Amino acid sequence: MIIVLKPNQKQETIKEFIQRLTSQYEVQVNTWVGTHSTVLGLIGDTTGIDSEYVAAQDFVESVKRVQEPYKKANRKFHPDDTVITLPGGQTIGGSSLALIAGPCSVESEEQICQVAQRVKASGATFLRGGAFKPRTSPYAFQGMKAEGLELLREAKKLTGLPIVTEIMSMEHIGLFEDVDIIQVGARNMQNFELLKQLGKLRRPILLKRGLANTIEELLMSAEYIMAEGNEQVILCERGIRTYETMTRNTLDISAVPVIKRLSHLPVVVDPSHASGVNWLIEPLAVAAAAVGADGLIIEVHNDPSHALCDGAQSITPDQFDSLAKKVRKVSQTVCEL
Amino acid sequence: MIIVLKPNQKQETIKEFIQRLTSQYEVQVNTWVGTHSTVLGLIGDTTGIDSEYVAAQDFVESVKRVQEPYKKANRKFHPDDTVITLPGGQTIGGSSLALIAGPCSVESEEQICQVAQRVKASGATFLRGGAFKPRTSPYAFQGMKAEGLELLREAKKLTGLPIVTEIMSMEHIGLFEDVDIIQVGARNMQNFELLKQLGKLRRPILLKRGLANTIEELLMSAEYIMAEGNEQVILCERGIRTYETMTRNTLDISAVPVIKRLSHLPVVVDPSHASGVNWLIEPLAVAAAAVGADGLIIEVHNDPSHALCDGAQSITPDQFDSLAKKVRKVSQTVCEL
Amino acid sequence: MIIVLKPNQKQETIKEFIQRLTSQYEVQVNTWVGTHSTVLGLIGDTTGIDSEYVAAQDFVESVKRVQEPYKKANRKFHPDDTVITLPGGQTIGGSSLALIAGPCSVESEEQICQVAQRVKASGATFLRGGAFKPRTSPYAFQGMKAEGLELLREAKKLTGLPIVTEIMSMEHIGLFEDVDIIQVGARNMQNFELLKQLGKLRRPILLKRGLANTIEELLMSAEYIMAEGNEQVILCERGIRTYETMTRNTLDISAVPVIKRLSHLPVVVDPSHASGVNWLIEPLAVAAAAVGADGLIIEVHNDPSHALCDGAQSITPDQFDSLAKKVRKVSQTVCEL
Amino acid sequence: MIIVLKPNQKQETIKEFIQRLTSQYEVQVNTWVGTHSTVLGLIGDTTGIDSEYVAAQDFVESVKRVQEPYKKANRKFHPDDTVITLPGGQTIGGSSLALIAGPCSVESEEQICQVAQRVKASGATFLRGGAFKPRTSPYAFQGMKAEGLELLREAKKLTGLPIVTEIMSMEHIGLFEDVDIIQVGARNMQNFELLKQLGKLRRPILLKRGLANTIEELLMSAEYIMAEGNEQVILCERGIRTYETMTRNTLDISAVPVIKRLSHLPVVVDPSHASGVNWLIEPLAVAAAAVGADGLIIEVHNDPSHALCDGAQSITPDQFDSLAKKVRKVSQTVCEL
Repeated sequence: MIIVLKPNQKQETIKEFIQRLTSQYEVQVNTWVGTHSTVLGLIGDTTGIDSEYVAAQDFVESVKRVQEPYKKANRKFHPDDTVITLPGGQTIGGSSLALIAGPCSVESEEQICQVAQRVKASGATFLRGGAFKPRTSPYAFQGMKAEGLELLREAKKLTGLPIVTEIMSMEHIGLFEDVDIIQVGARNMQNFELLKQLGKLRRPILLKRGLANTIEELLMSAEYIMAEGNEQVILCERGIRTYETMTRNTLDISAVPVIKRLSHLPVVVDPSHASGVNWLIEPLAVAAAAVGADGLIIEVHNDPSHALCDGAQSITPDQFDSLAKKVRKVSQTVCEL
Repeated sequence: MIIVLKPNQKQETIKEFIQRLTSQYEVQVNTWVGTHSTVLGLIGDTTGIDSEYVAAQDFVESVKRVQEPYKKANRKFHPDDTVITLPGGQTIGGSSLALIAGPCSVESEEQICQVAQRVKASGATFLRGGAFKPRTSPYAFQGMKAEGLELLREAKKLTGLPIVTEIMSMEHIGLFEDVDIIQVGARNMQNFELLKQLGKLRRPILLKRGLANTIEELLMSAEYIMAEGNEQVILCERGIRTYETMTRNTLDISAVPVIKRLSHLPVVVDPSHASGVNWLIEPLAVAAAAVGADGLIIEVHNDPSHALCDGAQSITPDQFDSLAKKVRKVSQTVCEL
Repeated sequence: MIIVLKPNQKQETIKEFIQRLTSQYEVQVNTWVGTHSTVLGLIGDTTGIDSEYVAAQDFVESVKRVQEPYKKANRKFHPDDTVITLPGGQTIGGSSLALIAGPCSVESEEQICQVAQRVKASGATFLRGGAFKPRTSPYAFQGMKAEGLELLREAKKLTGLPIVTEIMSMEHIGLFEDVDIIQVGARNMQNFELLKQLGKLRRPILLKRGLANTIEELLMSAEYIMAEGNEQVILCERGIRTYETMTRNTLDISAVPVIKRLSHLPVVVDPSHASGVNWLIEPLAVAAAAVGADGLIIEVHNDPSHALCDGAQSITPDQFDSLAKKVRKVSQTVCEL
Repeated sequence: MIIVLKPNQKQETIKEFIQRLTSQYEVQVNTWVGTHSTVLGLIGDTTGIDSEYVAAQDFVESVKRVQEPYKKANRKFHPDDTVITLPGGQTIGGSSLALIAGPCSVESEEQICQVAQRVKASGATFLRGGAFKPRTSPYAFQGMKAEGLELLREAKKLTGLPIVTEIMSMEHIGLFEDVDIIQVGARNMQNFELLKQLGKLRRPILLKRGLANTIEELLMSAEYIMAEGNEQVILCERGIRTYETMTRNTLDISAVPVIKRLSHLPVVVDPSHASGVNWLIEPLAVAAAAVGADGLIIEVHNDPSHALCDGAQSITPDQFDSLAKKVRKVSQTVCEL
């Protein structure tokens, strides 16, 4: 951490400040006195030092963090890629491309089972489906809840596909027993109480990036889960909010290689939420596979025009079949490069 | 709701769609056939119709909502300003300017009581102070929790100032008994499960706008609380995330008159979080008073450079005293215009 | 164009307004009277109608454009892909992937000739290089200007590669004689006077998307050039400004398929400016090829650490060689899908 | 400038780099060796050093500028407020509030003269009016050009109000002879060729902030003009582009106090373009006066619903009269605080 001090400060004040830092944290402080300003350089573990606290000092001009503020999610301290392996042998991370597919929300036994069978036949490795749905409007369909989870279990029995589904409150955790991967939605990415409690589980968490959250904040939210002991975190880029209105969100495709450089955690891409329109899903999925994503999460509905939720961004099982073939082909080509 | 259809659609498909709409919702559908396209106009209560569902239909080109998607927060159905009145007679909304002041986080009995007495003397009408703190880093100070709430009660006893403090999970609600106004932070603005449960209380809720949330989404989150029966919602503009880095966030000052036109709910402004630097608090507070805000929420700390949280954006009790005088003067001038 | 009127308007006012519209534009107006509001539907060519003018009427609630405001750039009126073919036979658009490579700025004869030879050997089809450089600071290197253009001509003679270089003012057009493709930079995307004058030329224009411009605005700027008679416009996605600071800009990869759906013009991607860091160029180039871009524009420097401009985002000729192989492979795979 | 080096670099490389810096610029370099990394601190005038050039070095981890990259616009080197005084005695900057009012575009002699007389009667100190109009669509009204400037001169003769009008290309400068203040529009804020040439004039330039430009970039564009010798620059905040769609742009009210802290140049606010809707102009104008703006630029039209441009955001002369009274009252109150 580099701290630039304002000019003409009293030696005493600075001394006292340095003492405060070295007594509270395991750091050493080097002082470098220039003609106009003085710079302090902190060596050691600065993860715990709040840079805002430092910036709040009267005599501080500015603060620059050199070391990343996250540890467990940091590739520097964990150079190898993390690969999440489920009891059934399915993996996320590593060399294969995970295909997570299914409807936005579970609507009926017939619907979820039919979609599950279709996407499995096309090569999906995981089944997604919402039982608890975060909707902007209180008057919109909020999901089938417990019943939806029950139907997901049926579909899992039928197809063997592990389940990925979203949790909105720890009060519901009892209902998530057979859920293989628990998803935290974009709107809850900084619901820190939820993250802390999920950190106490030993099941993989799929953590979606918030609409307006930076990559560093996403890693810090992963750190919340990991700091509690649960190191099985999968990150998900699903589009960020920008001024462009042609797409619902703007897919930040660069996030994939950036995160993979900074962290060892697997990263999947959700082109359905990123774009909001079905005809964009395939090209974006292909781009995500090409850029090195570890997986894709795609909304597939047997009858998008009757979907209770997100119909406009859902593709049909036939379209998913075509998409799956293409992304696998591109992923393979890229791996061989 | 205006629905533009794609050209050359089958009459039957459209008929069936219209039937679906009129059977599920209390609406009438008018059809207007142009040379190139057909337009459907929906009359009645379209609040419950999911415009994404409509957009998901194969034959729909685009959808335009004419009616706002919120009811209880809508000024059209509730023309008079809502004024929140506490048992002790303090109000938010109406002609007076509420001044909510206090430290980012409660740190000790001495600290909170000293600040409370100082801000009261300067004219603050409410005491703020965080006991549960949402922090980006799991390694940063997370608040004094139950003990912090206890100390807030002490400060309330001493000064008579009603308390405003943030809740992060309904699990903690038992500790919030004497809290006069419960705050929902920006990061939880779309934590819908929390909103629904706060809707069952009969205490005022201060709902902060999310970093990347639109004004309409803020009103929809208020609607979540109100739909459950709790109509005492205070909205708070606290800066939005933009590309500008000179300030921590960008204060969207226009949000105040825009919200007041769309809704009857009171609106307060938080210049501390909007700017992130103490020297900007006063000019922004004055601007907020001038634009017609119903109140201000300001971080005041007796010793900002030793604050455990948000020191850089805290002002001292002396600075608050000066600010309070100015905003009252400007507010009075604007009211007399 | 759909115009929703405010409730309770005088019949006369509306009649007079309809008359104004039909007398000035070749449109017919259909009126549809609902219970609460009246809606006007305009049929015909609404391109010339300023929707802001309509919105400015006292009695207008809102306006929705159904037809796109651009004509010549619109795929609806020109379904086939535009392919730009240079006198030397090189093309942009169609099935091949154009590779435009070269240094940010021309610095010396040795530099530009060396880079040109190297990138040609790796398969580049065009040479880029800046002679007039738009720099944020007046104190930064502003390009070699006329001399730079002269050196580009040398490099072209040597390698046969057509030249792509940026114009900043029409005063310099005399110097651009042998320039094959004239580039308009992001900061000049809405320099309408420049666009109009470039529209009078009969040379291809590479038009870069502005940092904060929508896809529709980019197409409207293309329309400025095309409306003057120059239909050889190549669009370029180069990243947009968002709140994320990990990359210099955010590559809006979705812009490629979105533009290709709306317009017949070719689209190239500039991963160098989008990311701002050299290690991101290759993965983003691969993603752009996968998503269907018609070409790539890449900054290559023989000695990035001594580059007078944009060194941090330049790759070496060796790195370009590797990149070129990969993008060609991926492009081929995608074409065969 | 603080330069953090990557770990484990060769001493020679660093020595050579330091030599390069000290030979080219008037700086001294201090080296501080930590356990993990080495930090270089540059003392002296670093304005000319391109931080991207530094970041492009292989061995550089990151660069932090301590000194601002602008000189002439910098308050540090020019502590007193700049006050622009016209030959007629009118001022912008200092203690008075400049009121610049008039139509978006000049449409006829009757229109401009009528508006000029009305706004003068209400206390406007300058007349604005567009003769050259930057429009998103090539099919929209582009202004009356030379004739418009002629009519502005008429209105000036009639009322004595100095003229503020926009230039879009230096080719038109001959027509701007009697123009008192030349405006550079938001879309041309980084049209550096235009800025350089305006820097050679000795007339005040009103420089509008670009839609997606940072405050620092605005100051750098001012620096372009000032570096050529023209120090009469007035900055204008007119709203920035964000994700919020309720207003056309988001007025960044904080920009006023931020710019005034960083620079000595006067700052005016344009609430008309910031909001895009007429009912927001007054509250935003009042807020701008309260926050300390040196002036306001307001679109006033005698008949907004027939305006050829920006009618939706124009107010009537009566509304301007009311606004002018209020902003003067608030400005006076704030000055007396």
